[in-house]
This record gives sequence, C-alpha cells and structure tokens, in this order.
Amino acid sequence: MNLCKKCSKNAVVFLPYSGEKLCRKCFLTSLEKKVQKAISRSRMLKISDRIGIALSGGKDSVVLLHILNKIESKFPESKLFIIHIDEGISQYSINNQKIAQKHASELDIPLIQNSYKKIYGKTLDEIIKQAEKRENKRLGACSYCGVFRRKALNITAREANVDCITTAHNLDDETQTIILNLLRGDLNRLIRNKPTPKKIHPKLVPRIKPLRTIPEKETTLYAYYKNLRHNSEPCPYASEAYRDDVRIFLNQIERKRPGTKYNILSLYDKLSPQITINQNSIQECTICGEPSVEKKCKACQLLEEILP
Amino acid sequence: MNLCKKCSKNAVVFLPYSGEKLCRKCFLTSLEKKVQKAISRSRMLKISDRIGIALSGGKDSVVLLHILNKIESKFPESKLFIIHIDEGISQYSINNQKIAQKHASELDIPLIQNSYKKIYGKTLDEIIKQAEKRENKRLGACSYCGVFRRKALNITAREANVDCITTAHNLDDETQTIILNLLRGDLNRLIRNKPTPKKIHPKLVPRIKPLRTIPEKETTLYAYYKNLRHNSEPCPYASEAYRDDVRIFLNQIERKRPGTKYNILSLYDKLSPQITINQNSIQECTICGEPSVEKKCKACQLLEEILP
Repeated sequence: MNLCKKCSKNAVVFLPYSGEKLCRKCFLTSLEKKVQKAISRSRMLKISDRIGIALSGGKDSVVLLHILNKIESKFPESKLFIIHIDEGISQYSINNQKIAQKHASELDIPLIQNSYKKIYGKTLDEIIKQAEKRENKRLGACSYCGVFRRKALNITAREANVDCITTAHNLDDETQTIILNLLRGDLNRLIRNKPTPKKIHPKLVPRIKPLRTIPEKETTLYAYYKNLRHNSEPCPYASEAYRDDVRIFLNQIERKRPGTKYNILSLYDKLSPQITINQNSIQECTICGEPSVEKKCKACQLLEEILP
Repeated sequence: MNLCKKCSKNAVVFLPYSGEKLCRKCFLTSLEKKVQKAISRSRMLKISDRIGIALSGGKDSVVLLHILNKIESKFPESKLFIIHIDEGISQYSINNQKIAQKHASELDIPLIQNSYKKIYGKTLDEIIKQAEKRENKRLGACSYCGVFRRKALNITAREANVDCITTAHNLDDETQTIILNLLRGDLNRLIRNKPTPKKIHPKLVPRIKPLRTIPEKETTLYAYYKNLRHNSEPCPYASEAYRDDVRIFLNQIERKRPGTKYNILSLYDKLSPQITINQNSIQECTICGEPSVEKKCKACQLLEEILP
C-alpha cells in the first residue's frame, strides 16, 4: 500500500495536498523539479545570469544553495555566488559563518561576505542593546534585523555585480507574510512582497524566491535526506509573537484542509499584479545614497533613532 | 477613572480598538452615528429610497432594523420594508417568524414574507433530508441555505419593488468571509463580496450592508441595552467548522491587537475595487429566469442535484 507513486519502491514521504506517496529518491528529484519549474515558469533567472544566493546558514538557504547548484550545473554560462551577511549575533552568527564557508568550499562557489559591523558600524547585538535603552519607539529585534539585512544584501550583491539575489523564503514564509500584512491592513507591504524579477532601479538588485511554492516541511525533509549541514538552533532574538500566531493558525488549517497554503499564494499571485499603490518612486537616500521609497531609507532612520 | 468619554457619567462599555469608555446612552448614540456615517459616506442609500431590510430574527438583523428605523425617521421620503424569508427549519423558523411579525407591528413597518417552500417547493428541512441521501456531492447545510436565501431575498425584494436590500452582516462576518475566501484561494468570491450599491442587472436588487464596520460584540451590546427581542438560539444546522476556525483565530488576534478586524476590512476596501475578475456577465438562468453568472443559477443546479 505504501509504495512510491513514481517507482513503486517503499514510500517514506506523503504529500497530503496532492495525495502523493514518494520514496526518498523520487521525493528529492520531484522537489528539485518543482523548483526548476517555478524558476522557468516565472522567468526568474536567465541562463547567463550571475546569481547571488543569500545564505544565512539556516536549512532553507542551504537547501536553496544545493538545488540551485544542481540546476545551474546544466547551464555552464550561469555562475553562482554565495552571499553571506554576518549580523553580529554572538555565537549564533559565528556558527552561521562556518556553515557558509563549509558549503562554499565544498561546492567550490565564491563566497562573498559582508557584515552589519562593516556596513553600519555596529553589530545587531550592539544595535539591540542601544535600542533597549529607548523606552518608547522600540521595535522587535526581527524588525530591526529585517531592515538592515535587506539593505546589506542589496549593497553586497550590487558590489559583487550579480544580476539577482535569490532568497530561501518558502511557502510557509510567504503565506504567513501575506496574512500578517492583511491583519495589519498594510496594503503597501502586502503588494511590495510580490515577485519582481525585473530591475526597477539601477541600484536595486532584483530579488527572487525560487522556493516560494515549497512547503517548509519539504525543505526540512530535503535537508534531512540529503544530510545537509545547517544551523538548526533558532536565532536568540527570534520571537515574532504575531508571526507565530499566524503560523500556528495556518498549520492547523493546512492539516485539516491540505492545499490551503497553495490556495493563498495562488490567489495572491492572481491579485497582486492588478494592484497599484500610491508608492513614491524609488529615490536615493539623502544620507547613504541607497535606494529608498522615502527621503531617508528605513535603515538610516532606525540608526538615527537608536544611536546617540 | 471609568467615566464616559463623552458625558462623564459611569462608563459601562470599553472599546479596545479606540480606547473609548462610554456610558450606556452614549454607546447607543455613538453606534447609531457610526452606522449613519457608514451609510452616508458610502452613498449606500438615497433619501427617497424604498429600503428593504432582510430580517432573519437574529440579533444583528433586529439591531439593523431598529437603527435604520431611527435614521430613516429623519427622512420622511424614504420608506422601510421588512423582508422575512421562512427557510422552513422546524421550530427555529417559526420562532423567527414571530419575531419578525412582532417588530413589524411594533414599528408599524410593512412586513413582506416569503418562504423556501413557496419559491422552491421544499423547506430547508426537506432539502437537507434529500441531500443527506446523496453520498458524494453533499454540501454543508449552510452552503445550501446561503444559495437559496440569496435568491429568495432577491426575488422577494424585487417583487416588493424596493430599491435595495439591506442585510445585517457585521464586521466579524465580513472579515471572516474575506479570510475564508483567501484560504480557499477563491478570487471570484473574494471580490464578489465587495459593496456594490449600484444596480448591475435589471433583475438584481442591490445589496447593502450598513453594519459591516460594526464589531459583533457591539451589535450584541446594542440589542442587550435596547432590550430588543430576537432569536438567540443558534440555527440547528449551524456548524460551519471552517468559519468557526477562522472566527476563533480572528477573535484571538483581535484580543491581542485591537483593531485587526478594522485593518482587514479597510485593506479589503482599498484592494477590491482595483481587481477585475474574468466573470461572465450576469445573464438569466435558463430554468428560472433569475439573474445568474452561469447558464443555470446555483439554486437550480443544487435543486437538480438533490431532487429525484
């Protein structure tokens, strides 16, 4: 009864939304094919691209690296670059850096490193310590880190002259973000999150999410079956209470009605291209010169607020 | 400390999303004003309208009736009509009918009655009994009832020659429906739910929801403080498991972050007018002649499926 749908060996994976049972090997191949299909269907990457891979060291980014490496080996004109940003979160960041170095050397892919310390003059630890002194306008650590990482990735990718940055956001991340922005009533952020593989500003490197249709459970299984070394400890700051509420809800609904996460993403993909928002065109931050929708970019605003 | 924000009497109501504390009288007035504001802002009703009020007998519909009656008394050119549909759900429907008759006679508003039995030849009880014999394509009772009620209301309102039907959907109903349609990936239904006070087909009476910005807690309090008689027993068929999951989630999030339901509705109101869907234009059902997006209207389809 529990035989692989593709090769009739013993199945070890069950995908509730499609009803498929798969053996280890067919599961891995099928996941790789799904990613390849998502990439070619959305015309995310060109075969001649210099492709940056944002590698945090977490399982999803390591899975992305290995799948892209496999896909791109068929296209010798394309070239991969690992981009690793050291946030400066004590031992956690040190462990992540080791993982990035290990995969880069094993796969023989150039590793481009940068850090909050180099770019902003402070580590995340230092930024959070300063922020904690401020009583009123303090944000959660993830909010600071998100702003600083986005900017750091863009600067580093542009300096490395890559054509795009790929990030490892999976189906769970994407659907949580959609629901969160809906609950916050934030139309700008809801729409800004849609895929934009095109270059919309000369200083802004396009961002691509090849895993956005892959459920987190499957990236986890992929990392497990491929025995991919990754940092499995959670970030010491990670406690996004709001996102956790949404995650628990979506997982509960997905268990009862498999396919719900796909439904959300596919509705979003039909809806988001139709929405125009009153967004300022992208300009250059008056402080740092980086692309920004406001006069001062968000990172410079936060640094001004925090630092004495 | 617990004084009414408006008149400094003892406050009995606290509205977490605005921080307001209100006494009984100021709460009632403020809710009535909110509904009036929503109506005039969205140009839902004209002062010369013949206004149909869909009165089920539940608290929301009774509250809607009383607030509209108060508002419309200032506009003598407008005229209210109570529209009551008897679904034929044994004692539950009999109780609802009594409530409709009581309010109609007390407020001296014409009561226009119709029933599933007259329109479809069967009560809901009979329809569900038939449906239960079908193993495969059986829907939940609420799905049948929703389709039949929508059509019944439209037929009855049109025959009564009213300019619009007002229904008592509150903020909770609206936001649950938005999230449900998102989880189902149903763009058509998501967008179809937006307010359309205009006439889009000569046989389709425009539907208006004057309470769509009012949280359910507040309609409950209004009914309680005004001592409005209503049917507080739940419908014996009511068990929409999916909607219940969404309701519990939204209430939990609203408790933690007051204003979330408003956020969802206001984002929806910004987004939905921009979306065009590949919807067939409205035609007349080949069986009953009622307006429909398909050749056969949904009610006729369901009846064909169910009845031998």
